[in-house]
Amino acid sequence: MAKSLVYRAEDLFDFMVRFFFKLGVPQDRAEITAEVLQAADLRGVNSHGMIRLQTYYGSRLQKGLINPLANNQVLRESPASLALDGKNGLGQVVAKDAMLRCIEKARHAGVAMVTVNNSNHYGIAGYYAMMALEHDMIGISFTNAQPLVAPTYGRTRILGTNPIAVAAPAFSQRPYVLDMATSIVPIGKVTVYDKSGKELPEGWAIDAQGLPTTDPKAVLNGGALFPLGGPDILRGYKGYGLALMVDIFSGVLAGAGFGTLVAHPSQSNAANVGHFFAAMRLDAFRDPIDFKKDLDALFTQLKNTEKAAGQDRIYIHGEKEFELTENYRQNGIPLLEEVVKSLQIAGENAGVPFDLAVLREEQPDPANSGN
Amino acid sequence: MAKSLVYRAEDLFDFMVRFFFKLGVPQDRAEITAEVLQAADLRGVNSHGMIRLQTYYGSRLQKGLINPLANNQVLRESPASLALDGKNGLGQVVAKDAMLRCIEKARHAGVAMVTVNNSNHYGIAGYYAMMALEHDMIGISFTNAQPLVAPTYGRTRILGTNPIAVAAPAFSQRPYVLDMATSIVPIGKVTVYDKSGKELPEGWAIDAQGLPTTDPKAVLNGGALFPLGGPDILRGYKGYGLALMVDIFSGVLAGAGFGTLVAHPSQSNAANVGHFFAAMRLDAFRDPIDFKKDLDALFTQLKNTEKAAGQDRIYIHGEKEFELTENYRQNGIPLLEEVVKSLQIAGENAGVPFDLAVLREEQPDPANSGN
Repeated sequence: MAKSLVYRAEDLFDFMVRFFFKLGVPQDRAEITAEVLQAADLRGVNSHGMIRLQTYYGSRLQKGLINPLANNQVLRESPASLALDGKNGLGQVVAKDAMLRCIEKARHAGVAMVTVNNSNHYGIAGYYAMMALEHDMIGISFTNAQPLVAPTYGRTRILGTNPIAVAAPAFSQRPYVLDMATSIVPIGKVTVYDKSGKELPEGWAIDAQGLPTTDPKAVLNGGALFPLGGPDILRGYKGYGLALMVDIFSGVLAGAGFGTLVAHPSQSNAANVGHFFAAMRLDAFRDPIDFKKDLDALFTQLKNTEKAAGQDRIYIHGEKEFELTENYRQNGIPLLEEVVKSLQIAGENAGVPFDLAVLREEQPDPANSGN
Repeated sequence: MAKSLVYRAEDLFDFMVRFFFKLGVPQDRAEITAEVLQAADLRGVNSHGMIRLQTYYGSRLQKGLINPLANNQVLRESPASLALDGKNGLGQVVAKDAMLRCIEKARHAGVAMVTVNNSNHYGIAGYYAMMALEHDMIGISFTNAQPLVAPTYGRTRILGTNPIAVAAPAFSQRPYVLDMATSIVPIGKVTVYDKSGKELPEGWAIDAQGLPTTDPKAVLNGGALFPLGGPDILRGYKGYGLALMVDIFSGVLAGAGFGTLVAHPSQSNAANVGHFFAAMRLDAFRDPIDFKKDLDALFTQLKNTEKAAGQDRIYIHGEKEFELTENYRQNGIPLLEEVVKSLQIAGENAGVPFDLAVLREEQPDPANSGN
């Protein structure tokens, strides 16, 4: 039976910083990258956290496939827009800089949008959308990714799980933070079912013939993920349309890879991932206090409504993740035993031993494996 | 058995213009309103076309619940943003003016966003997003609407079917036009099943206890629509999150009604519907020709991929609707017999007889009843 080992968040953060620094990433950039990866683990989106340390980042830095010293370069600029070339830098470093520039432009123009090409996997989309919150802005972040999702009526992986993240500040309640893959589930979720020998719920994914399947192996071996909605009768073409929208904004508009042209992190060429960011000053549209109080009121409408039979709570997007973050900051972050093993190998390999104190062991929470 | 009567598009347009004019709408505004309503019927989204002429517009004009002479008023303005008060005008007139202003602002600032409060039902969201296409821009349009969708784990109608529309121009292929309700289906679709005595497909909607049901009556009598995705296991909280996002942008940010505060067109108070628009100049980010050619290439990747077993074609969003529009412009627009009856009553009532030449009768296409 799989188990989790629990570590102090600070210890894991320090390890990641030392790991990236050893691989040639300057200290401040190592900290940014570690911060975004840890944000994923803290929010329970562990498909985008330390589990990816070696495969998405460490190995590519070691092979020279990511340039840790790259600086974003301006391609085009107008009062409310900016097109950047990420110069194949670390996705987190590229994206944080891009969103900071987006916020700065929105400060002057009311709203702003920024595209980035030649980037890499940037971790969780929600991190960058949430950067807008402290500025009394709404933040938006999209990215494309390696192909995993089949279009409606197709059988082949063409689009990424292309996430949509949107964050908006409330008054006395926690902010709204939508951070969703446009597939029903991430591929990591299918892998988890495969490893535990369980059948998938109906409707998550298709086999190599493009037919719905509950066999995780059939998905992993030549199958594909369904877009949000699933089959046509449940309007999967809407999820397909959202995944395509994200690729139009992050890939085509940015001049990055798109569709099957976005490389998987395991490939030995530049990934050419593209991102899209937007920021909107609340006070460009109305009094920010009024906005926040009305958002509170909308949340209250939703949370106080009658529950479905058997349910006792309605959530606002981001709420579970904020509660988990508080819990994990206080009580430590659980990592699956196999993730710990991969970190030990990665650490040994890089000359930065993963020898952190284990707070305790526990059973893994099956609910936490990606969005 | 229900049948459809087919009319010339021009005849229907003329009737609508005369109808609105008779109800006090100036000629140019009557034409705008008719054009947007006809765009819905031409695109096969007939839930938002002439079927609503009396209930959403005519009756409210007659009761003085919509002001046909209202002019949008600027509430706040910055280089790339604009907040408008629709002054309870006709939704189509309010929204077309707002999107034109959005395009004009984007021309100067690169991108722009516009909110509108105190508006009314504006027809199909896609119409306004598509206005950007001829300007070599990407267009976005959201609106909130009267509550019909329950949040995940809820049983009560709190959010509207809050559509997302995004349009982007391609080079030699038709543009991408996503125009989707954030519920799985519109309520009109459930009504159609009820009238024909058929069971709903599993997963579209819930009953008064918040449990999934296939009984259309259980949905119509105290039930609610599922958000895109459906139940939690298929990630309906993502569709719920998108519906909420649309309400945050169109309702809360605009200072309009939100959640249960948006009135149904049948209520006798101002609807206070809110809209959100955005426009993005392609050349603010890259050479528009390169963008369009890459979008063609992405479409080609999608369309040329292997099809799922039993399927022979993959569609790009908007493609079916463009084909239908060409067909209907040439061969006439089919209206369900019951819609024709409601138009006859509405016309008689307004003193504008609905006495158009019927081109032919045909069986209704069950595929066409909303998005």
